[in-house]
Amino acid sequence: MSQYFQIHRTVGAGRRATLTLPHATVETPVFMPVGTQGTVKAIPQHLLEELDVRLLLGNTYHLYLRPGHEAIRRMGGLHRFMSWERAILTDSGGFQVFSLSDLRKVTEEGVAFRSHIDGSSHFFSPEHSMDVQIALGSDIAMAFDECTEYPADYARARASLDITLQWAKRSKEHFEAHKSSVPWAVDKAQGSELRAQERLEGQFPSLFGIVQGGMFAELRREAAERLVEMDFPGYAIGGLSVGEPRELTREMIATTLPLLPKDKPRYVMGVGYPDEIAEYARMGVDMMDCVLPTRAARHGLLFTSEGRLNIKNRQYAEDQGPVDGNCGCMVCRRYSRAYLRHLMAAQEPLAAVLNTVHNLAFYLETMRKVREEMA
Amino acid sequence: MSQYFQIHRTVGAGRRATLTLPHATVETPVFMPVGTQGTVKAIPQHLLEELDVRLLLGNTYHLYLRPGHEAIRRMGGLHRFMSWERAILTDSGGFQVFSLSDLRKVTEEGVAFRSHIDGSSHFFSPEHSMDVQIALGSDIAMAFDECTEYPADYARARASLDITLQWAKRSKEHFEAHKSSVPWAVDKAQGSELRAQERLEGQFPSLFGIVQGGMFAELRREAAERLVEMDFPGYAIGGLSVGEPRELTREMIATTLPLLPKDKPRYVMGVGYPDEIAEYARMGVDMMDCVLPTRAARHGLLFTSEGRLNIKNRQYAEDQGPVDGNCGCMVCRRYSRAYLRHLMAAQEPLAAVLNTVHNLAFYLETMRKVREEMA
Repeated sequence: MSQYFQIHRTVGAGRRATLTLPHATVETPVFMPVGTQGTVKAIPQHLLEELDVRLLLGNTYHLYLRPGHEAIRRMGGLHRFMSWERAILTDSGGFQVFSLSDLRKVTEEGVAFRSHIDGSSHFFSPEHSMDVQIALGSDIAMAFDECTEYPADYARARASLDITLQWAKRSKEHFEAHKSSVPWAVDKAQGSELRAQERLEGQFPSLFGIVQGGMFAELRREAAERLVEMDFPGYAIGGLSVGEPRELTREMIATTLPLLPKDKPRYVMGVGYPDEIAEYARMGVDMMDCVLPTRAARHGLLFTSEGRLNIKNRQYAEDQGPVDGNCGCMVCRRYSRAYLRHLMAAQEPLAAVLNTVHNLAFYLETMRKVREEMA
Repeated sequence: MSQYFQIHRTVGAGRRATLTLPHATVETPVFMPVGTQGTVKAIPQHLLEELDVRLLLGNTYHLYLRPGHEAIRRMGGLHRFMSWERAILTDSGGFQVFSLSDLRKVTEEGVAFRSHIDGSSHFFSPEHSMDVQIALGSDIAMAFDECTEYPADYARARASLDITLQWAKRSKEHFEAHKSSVPWAVDKAQGSELRAQERLEGQFPSLFGIVQGGMFAELRREAAERLVEMDFPGYAIGGLSVGEPRELTREMIATTLPLLPKDKPRYVMGVGYPDEIAEYARMGVDMMDCVLPTRAARHGLLFTSEGRLNIKNRQYAEDQGPVDGNCGCMVCRRYSRAYLRHLMAAQEPLAAVLNTVHNLAFYLETMRKVREEMA
């Protein structure tokens, strides 16, 4: 294995490693904040840097629709567009096509759907998803997959997995053929306006495969085996956190992890609560992302070392303590619960900023502690 | 005159001075950002510090209704509540009572009104406005006044001014009798939880009088003379920017300024566009506040050295330049017009944060340049 994923230590099934990407060196296990539309909602990029975020997630579906991947490519890629020099992982667009768009129609070729913004018609195939992600210039792209809904019976999960596996193969072929076209690998002569120092000579993005299979261990096994045969540089476990009970999520992760190569990064998509991400990391998951810390923050739900609290609650009206006495984030160092409650009550935009900073700090610190356990 | 307002240089009618307040030393002419509900909308306090804001404005009406001045007093005052150690000026509540509340009824005693939040009944007298501002712990409080509407005929402006002048006298008497009760001047033994280092021994807030008089030079003159007799440590010109043409605003300011003591700070409330605040400063105005830079920012209207621009405009969709090539603010150094336009188009909360930082930086820089002209 190359230096790209270097495992330093294993403790039980968990492992502490370094993932070297074109735009950043990332210590794993890592939690990736979600920056859906080219921004982690409400947070300026320099605050993400202060939080030591090295890798964040962008949503292919959203950025394709607005401002458009071609526009982003013309402007030098997503890193440059959003002024984020560290690493970016993009999802395939598949999950949002299934969860947000209207009137979708899935064929073997791909998915026809209507935009949730303006109802316009669009078509995503594996090849198109790769083109979009390459135009965005992700450090890590994801294979185009169908996220199987929950509940789904065996026949449905089986059919859905067949499509995902065909699409994984097509994704990989197209990605490998075109990955050198990422904006940051293209020089000025080829039409991009990137300055020389922005080019990353000889570096290319990676494509991860996604294990689907619904809640059927047998299908998860087949998915993992087939994807491993295709030899991806990393593997995700998708189709979880779609409404199933938590024990089932854990079971599917536990079933799938041993089937994935030990020397490659493993990514569980769309999880979870702080105790869950710590648990999954100890089980051997290297990467996770979730909208929970950022979305919950905007609704006043804050995570602390003593559990969750709803900062809108009347009991905090004159509480001059910090959100979490054990947290050293810029919000807990400076602001009181009473002030944060007031900002929510008064519907002030600063509420989203401060709540999000705290929740992200808490998630990142949760992962830092897990890494420390393995130091 | 004490060191409280020290004039360093005059250029024409304009002057560069230092205003020494309990919580900050402020270089004037100064523009004060508006922090209506204990927050400059969307901006964390440390970014205000990075912008070198020394003095900001809080709204008595809003803070009285939510979270309540008594709650703020119990928590050590507004500075501590919002974690802002620099200076705060509070308005009297009068303007918001007249512009926001329902069913107000003005008598010589005061104003009965209903909350714009929940319709509950309230009453503000000059004495009550002082009590609220003292509970908040402002560095500068404002006399309770009636903001005369525009247009108003002579008889109406005359009657309104009479009330304002009576209220000014009552405001001053009550304020002087109770100003030592500001939370930051009260020690632990008297019930506040302030730590010793947060107390400002022997320092008290100041109360400014407000010149009203509608658009009648004769009434403005009378107001100024009567207020000067009452001997306030500073004077505001109120009742402007209420819908009158810009030339009339300027005329009323030009008429009133020479009637105010040269050795005390002069504050024009609620103005204006960048060229206006620079013009008024050169005419001898020392302090100004306005919601324009912050409110406009949230609607995508940005101020630049080459005029205003609406960042939502399609023409900026792929504009990789900064908002203002002559601006050194953190937004112009890092983000493109295209990115800011995308944030507005995608209704992202970061739009308000970044747009507001830029507009405030532009306003503060405008004042810095005027001070530099007088250096």
